[in-house]
Amino acid sequence: MKVTVQGRSRHFRTVSYDGRTNSVLLIEQRLIPHQFEIVAAGTFRETAAAIKDMIVRGAGAIGATAAYGLAQGARAFRGRDVTKFENHISTVYETLKAARPTAVDPVNAMNQVRQVMRQGKTVQERQALALAAAEEFANENVLHCRQIGEHGARLIRSGMNLLTHCNAGWLAFVDVGSATAPMYEAQAQLKKFHVYCDETRPRSQGATLTAWELAQQRIPHQIIADNAAGHLMQRGKIDLVIVGSDRTLGRTGEVANKIGTYTKAVLAKRHGIPFYVAIPLSTIDWNLRSGFDIPIEERDEREVLGAWGTVSMSRSGVGSRPSHRRAYVRVANPSSTALNPGFDVTPAELITGIITPAGIFKPGELWARRRELGWGSNNSK
Amino acid sequence: MKVTVQGRSRHFRTVSYDGRTNSVLLIEQRLIPHQFEIVAAGTFRETAAAIKDMIVRGAGAIGATAAYGLAQGARAFRGRDVTKFENHISTVYETLKAARPTAVDPVNAMNQVRQVMRQGKTVQERQALALAAAEEFANENVLHCRQIGEHGARLIRSGMNLLTHCNAGWLAFVDVGSATAPMYEAQAQLKKFHVYCDETRPRSQGATLTAWELAQQRIPHQIIADNAAGHLMQRGKIDLVIVGSDRTLGRTGEVANKIGTYTKAVLAKRHGIPFYVAIPLSTIDWNLRSGFDIPIEERDEREVLGAWGTVSMSRSGVGSRPSHRRAYVRVANPSSTALNPGFDVTPAELITGIITPAGIFKPGELWARRRELGWGSNNSK
Repeated sequence: MKVTVQGRSRHFRTVSYDGRTNSVLLIEQRLIPHQFEIVAAGTFRETAAAIKDMIVRGAGAIGATAAYGLAQGARAFRGRDVTKFENHISTVYETLKAARPTAVDPVNAMNQVRQVMRQGKTVQERQALALAAAEEFANENVLHCRQIGEHGARLIRSGMNLLTHCNAGWLAFVDVGSATAPMYEAQAQLKKFHVYCDETRPRSQGATLTAWELAQQRIPHQIIADNAAGHLMQRGKIDLVIVGSDRTLGRTGEVANKIGTYTKAVLAKRHGIPFYVAIPLSTIDWNLRSGFDIPIEERDEREVLGAWGTVSMSRSGVGSRPSHRRAYVRVANPSSTALNPGFDVTPAELITGIITPAGIFKPGELWARRRELGWGSNNSK
Repeated sequence: MKVTVQGRSRHFRTVSYDGRTNSVLLIEQRLIPHQFEIVAAGTFRETAAAIKDMIVRGAGAIGATAAYGLAQGARAFRGRDVTKFENHISTVYETLKAARPTAVDPVNAMNQVRQVMRQGKTVQERQALALAAAEEFANENVLHCRQIGEHGARLIRSGMNLLTHCNAGWLAFVDVGSATAPMYEAQAQLKKFHVYCDETRPRSQGATLTAWELAQQRIPHQIIADNAAGHLMQRGKIDLVIVGSDRTLGRTGEVANKIGTYTKAVLAKRHGIPFYVAIPLSTIDWNLRSGFDIPIEERDEREVLGAWGTVSMSRSGVGSRPSHRRAYVRVANPSSTALNPGFDVTPAELITGIITPAGIFKPGELWARRRELGWGSNNSK
């Protein structure tokens, strides 16, 4: 998407590749929204470190990063011995996989690249195929997000007020995003609308990432406390909710997403407000039979007990300017502890529709439509 | 309530009076939870400043502070001329009233003191009556909170998990509190229970004030993000919700309270969890006919865009210890704005019961019971 850097608007992808230097280029997401910087990972080990250190996050984005990282590792190999090359590739694969051991997207992405690569006979052929497959993986990710955008944009009419939770934006994918895709497409269609961004405590991805994204695209928006959405719905100020999902159950239509999503769905149902979930097909889980079987990660309590942001520091000395630095403030009572579940599960009955690259479906339709929705391609996990 | 200061547990009221020095003693609430300090306001002007500067906040607490402030001003008068004395009292009254112009509690409290005072003939008699009336106002506030506690404690059984939102604790009253009163009483009855404190963004009164209160009384508790309550209810981890109220409509049973209260009520209803509101009778509004007529204050957007807390600063120099200082961090995207409604309105159908000093009532019963619930005493506003 477009980002304004030093007064000039340019297009960036979250993840891309520079063939001249054999580098993976990443938006340094830890600096967003306070700074915009592109990091060049010059070796596959640097690319793995970038995944591990959260320079890049979001299922789609780390999948593409791993795909490029594998191609990068392949292209760095010097020699013609295919066996040695494949040993090297195994090292690259394991290194990238170990960077985020619980994620499935890097593994799926690298398997796809490896499968294509092996159709080559020589090392050189395999190197070329690896890069082509990585590029295709990334382009497909963008295409799917655009398709989500096209289907979802039909739901947005001029004058509407939207609500979104957390960040299912282009920073979490290669480009365009999932929950944000309908917004970007509706804007391209010159529709005028306004977005409320849930702050999304405790990690504030709505106030930081989503708000930054919308500001860059000049989409009118306001950040609200997570507590405020119910009041705004009651007063008729929200017309449509679109969120993303970390895992959607193909058998039941239940949706696991950032903590607080379930609350917004309950509120939307009470007020008769349409509640949509935008997802790429890769996040559909065709195996689990109940949302209660989804493990809910309990995260570090410090997220709840305080907040990260920038603090203004007045330097001593005449004529010195105040500087800004990143800091964590402890907000809560020092002797209290916190409970910090990271995700929740929204039942199908609260979900108006699921926006996929293949169209918009009712959650109960997913299983019947499983053949067109990718069942079989990732149901063996 | 008890506070542990330098390892020793002592009893404090939020507001009290020292006759020897004619001072109003206040817990410096802006330092809670990071520091505990009693401030002595030595003149009625200092007492007014303490209200204005938010050293003391909460309807019950500022009512008692104004009552004591009026007595303090009366006692500072030197002379025997009743007319001059009454002129002086008018100045005191207006000064204290102007400290928080939108609040009704200081005015009601001072009117009560003034009415009693005028029964005295001499200045000296009026001075003595003013102090007695202020003491009575404060003691009545405590008594009413204790009665709320006695009625509400019947709802709490050992093994229960409670949820509360914001701070309707003893810091907001003279002692004991409203939503916390049933907890303190249940603890005195040796019941064992656990409390989830909603963080209560954007001002985090749950994470700071309520968590501090519960920690001081050694009631087991955990702070949760406002987003987490829905998930906990879905998983059967919350048995009872008790909140306070800024204004309860006597005609409809609607409850205005801190933003996010409505959301918790909607969630509780969905899960069949009892949702109670604990209130002193003075907060019942007998005039308004609809919750939609309650003005919802829009507060400073900086509350949503960042957070206040303590930050650890490493000092330069060998052997120096890190210091802690209060700081505001900007969390949100710098170019985004926020919308910050301070309160919301919960309809009667979501409220299981209203806990008052006179007993527990269904919200729809208030109007029929208005004579025993103080209608007439404050329905002329």
